[in-house]
Amino acid sequence: MISFSEPIRESGQTDVLQLACNPIETVRVAFIGLGKRGKEAFNHFMYFDRVEIIAICDKSQDKVAEVQQVLSKHKKPKADSYTQTDDWRVICERDDIDLIYVCTHRNLHTPIAVCAMQNGKHVVVEVPAANTLEECWQLVDTAEKTRQHCMMLENCCYDYFEMAVLNMVQNGVLGEVLHTEGGYIHDLRQLDFEQKPDYLSYWTMQGNPYPTHGLGPLCQLLNIHRGDRLSWLTSVSGGQFNSPVCKEHGFGSQCKLGNMNTTIIRTQKDKTIVLQHDISSPRPYSRNFLASGTNGFVQKRTTPEIALSPDLSSFLPNDKVAELLKEYEHHFYQEMGDLARKVGSHGGMDFIMDYRLIYCLHKGLPLDMDIYDAVEWSCIVDLSAQSVANGSVPVGIPDFTRGSWNKLKELIFHVAQ
Amino acid sequence: MISFSEPIRESGQTDVLQLACNPIETVRVAFIGLGKRGKEAFNHFMYFDRVEIIAICDKSQDKVAEVQQVLSKHKKPKADSYTQTDDWRVICERDDIDLIYVCTHRNLHTPIAVCAMQNGKHVVVEVPAANTLEECWQLVDTAEKTRQHCMMLENCCYDYFEMAVLNMVQNGVLGEVLHTEGGYIHDLRQLDFEQKPDYLSYWTMQGNPYPTHGLGPLCQLLNIHRGDRLSWLTSVSGGQFNSPVCKEHGFGSQCKLGNMNTTIIRTQKDKTIVLQHDISSPRPYSRNFLASGTNGFVQKRTTPEIALSPDLSSFLPNDKVAELLKEYEHHFYQEMGDLARKVGSHGGMDFIMDYRLIYCLHKGLPLDMDIYDAVEWSCIVDLSAQSVANGSVPVGIPDFTRGSWNKLKELIFHVAQ
Repeated sequence: MISFSEPIRESGQTDVLQLACNPIETVRVAFIGLGKRGKEAFNHFMYFDRVEIIAICDKSQDKVAEVQQVLSKHKKPKADSYTQTDDWRVICERDDIDLIYVCTHRNLHTPIAVCAMQNGKHVVVEVPAANTLEECWQLVDTAEKTRQHCMMLENCCYDYFEMAVLNMVQNGVLGEVLHTEGGYIHDLRQLDFEQKPDYLSYWTMQGNPYPTHGLGPLCQLLNIHRGDRLSWLTSVSGGQFNSPVCKEHGFGSQCKLGNMNTTIIRTQKDKTIVLQHDISSPRPYSRNFLASGTNGFVQKRTTPEIALSPDLSSFLPNDKVAELLKEYEHHFYQEMGDLARKVGSHGGMDFIMDYRLIYCLHKGLPLDMDIYDAVEWSCIVDLSAQSVANGSVPVGIPDFTRGSWNKLKELIFHVAQ
Repeated sequence: MISFSEPIRESGQTDVLQLACNPIETVRVAFIGLGKRGKEAFNHFMYFDRVEIIAICDKSQDKVAEVQQVLSKHKKPKADSYTQTDDWRVICERDDIDLIYVCTHRNLHTPIAVCAMQNGKHVVVEVPAANTLEECWQLVDTAEKTRQHCMMLENCCYDYFEMAVLNMVQNGVLGEVLHTEGGYIHDLRQLDFEQKPDYLSYWTMQGNPYPTHGLGPLCQLLNIHRGDRLSWLTSVSGGQFNSPVCKEHGFGSQCKLGNMNTTIIRTQKDKTIVLQHDISSPRPYSRNFLASGTNGFVQKRTTPEIALSPDLSSFLPNDKVAELLKEYEHHFYQEMGDLARKVGSHGGMDFIMDYRLIYCLHKGLPLDMDIYDAVEWSCIVDLSAQSVANGSVPVGIPDFTRGSWNKLKELIFHVAQ
C-alpha cells in the first residue's frame, strides 16, 4: 500500500471540529470568480437579509458589470469591482470583509482559501477544494492555525433526495449503512469548453478528477470523521477512449483521463464506497446514488428506488417511495424549499447551501460542512490518480483530523436555540 | 501485482477453440446431482428428441426415485440408479454414455468433469466450474488433451434480456462496449440451508465466491478470448457484517465473507468490468447489469433502461425500451421462447441453454460456451479471494488460451446449414 505520513501539528495547534466563531451581525462578502456557479450563488445572496456585497472579482469586465447590474436590479449598493489577475490577494487583505466566496477555476481554490484565512476571513470554495494531498494539508493546517471557517461548496449534500435519505438514515429507517455507491456520470463531450475552460484540465488527469458530488453525501451517511473515517482506496481506469475529444481541444498526447474510473474506498469500520467518474460516455446524467443498510436499501440511478425490511422481494411502488421521501423531507426543504426552487439553481439545493452558510455565520454556529469534509472528499483526486498511476495498488487515505475522527459521533446541522 | 505463470502444454496439445466433435445421433445422458437445478434440467430433457437418459445419480434415494417417476410420467424408459458417494466414477467409466450433466455441490464439479473427459465423455457442469486456479488449469488441460466438450451451465447468458442486449451489441446498436457492470445481489440470509447446503460454504470464502452469473453475459458482450481477454483484477470486500448468519449455521469464526465484494476487472483492450457479490444485505435480487458503449447505454438494476445516441438527456420511455428489446429479441427466443417459458425454470433461460447444448451435440457444432469461458468466469472465485487476502492488490488473470485469445474475432452461436 502506498501511504503517507501526516505532518506534525505546530505547538498549540488543535483540531477545528465543531468550530464556532463569533456571531456576525451583518455578513460582509466578497465574490471571487463570477462564472456560471459564481453568478448563481451571487443571485441567492440577493435574497438574504443582513448580508452586504463588498467586492466582486473576475478577470472578465463583462461578468463584473453583469453582477453589478444584479445588485442594481435588487436595489443594493454597488460593490467594489476587481478585474486584475492578482486582485484576489488585494481582496483578502481588506479589513472590511467577513466571508470570501470562491468560484474560480480549481487551481486557485486552495491558494485563495489559504490567503483568505491567513487574513482573518472565513472562506468557502467551489469543488474540489484541493487538487493535491499537499493542498489538502495546507488547507487543514491553515484552518487549524487561523481558526477560520473553510467550507467546500458541495451542493449535492443539499439535494432534496440526498437530504431525505440522510434524514431517513439519521432516523434509523435503513438500519446501519454498510455499503454505498455514488459517482459523477456526466456526458461532457459536447460541452462548450470556451465557456467552461476549467473542465478541459480534466482530460489530462488520471484517476477520478471530480469526486466530491458523489462522495460528499455518502460520507455524510457514513458519519465520516464523526465515528468512522476513509481508510484506503484502490482505483481502476479504463482506457483513454475519449482521446478524440481531448485531442480536439488541443491536449493531444497529454490526454490521460480513463473513460470510466471506478474507485473503491474502504472505511476504518469496514464499510465500502464505490465511486465512479465518467464524462465521456453517451449516458444520461447520474450521481449513481446507492445506500445499502441492515434494514433497507435506497438507490437512484434514474428515479429513486427504495426497499425496506421485511418485504425485500421488490422495490416499493413509486407512490409509496414518493410518500416516504415526503415523510422524510428534510426540514430545510420544509422551511425554504419553495423559495429555493424558485430562485436557486440545481433545483434549489445551491440556495439551501448558501442559506445555511449565512445562517450559521449569523448565529455563530459550526457550519454544516467543515474543513475535514472538504479535504476528505477532495483528496480522492490525487489519491485515485496515484493508485491508477501505480497499477491500481491500494493507497492509504490520511486521517486529516490527526486522531480525532472518533471524537464526534454524528453529523449535526446546528440550529440556534 | 500477484501473477501466475501458465503451465506449459504437453507436446502435441493444442487449444480447443471452436472444438467440433462428431455429430451424435442420439445423445445418451447421465445426470449426477439431482438437487433443485439437477431436477429442473432433467425435466427439460423430457422435451428433447433423440435423447436417452441412461443413468441418474444422487446420494438421496428419494431424489433418484423422484426423477425415475418423471421418466415414467413422460413414458420414457427407466434409467440406472446410482446412490453411492463414489458412483460418479462408475458412471464416467461406462461405455454407453455421451454426455454427463453435473449438478452436484461445487467441490465435485472439476473432479467429475475431469474424470468424465478422461473417459471420453462430454461434460457440462453447474457454476462455478472450478473453485481454484489449479482446478481451472486441470479442466483446460484435460479438455485440450481429450478433445471433449466441457461447458459450464451459465444459464444467465440465455436470459431474455441479456440475449437481447447481446444481439443489440452484435448488431452495433451500442457502438463499441467500453465499460460493463454485473453482479450477484441475492439476499440469502433466510435461505433454507438444509435444502441448499452448498451455499453454506460461501460464508467461509473471501472475495467473490459466486461470480459467473454476473460475469458470463458481460464477457460475451466484450468478446473475451475472442479478440480481448481478462487481464487483471483488484477486489475489495467490506467487513464480515453477516457473521451472525454465519455463526447461526455453525461456522463461527470461520466466517470470512465480506458483506459486499466489489471486483474491478480490466481487459487487455482496456475495457473495465465492475463485478459485485452480496448475499447478506436486505436488497431486491439483481444481477446489476450495465453496458456502456460508444453509441448507447443499457442498464438493468430493476427494470431495463436504455439510452441511445444522439438523444442522451434521458432514458427511452418504457414502451420504446420494450419495443427495442422485442426488435432485438434473440432468435432462440423467437424459435422456442414459448415452450421454454412454459416448461423451463428461471423464465425459460435454462431450457434454451439445455436445448442449445443438445442441438449442437446432435449437429456436431461447437458449443455456445467453451472450456475457456468456463474457467475465465470461474477463476474469479480464487483470484478475487487472493486479492482480498493480500490487501486488495492487483492480481493477474491467466490467459487460459495460452496465446490464442485474439484468434477468434467474435462470439458465434453456430447453426447447422
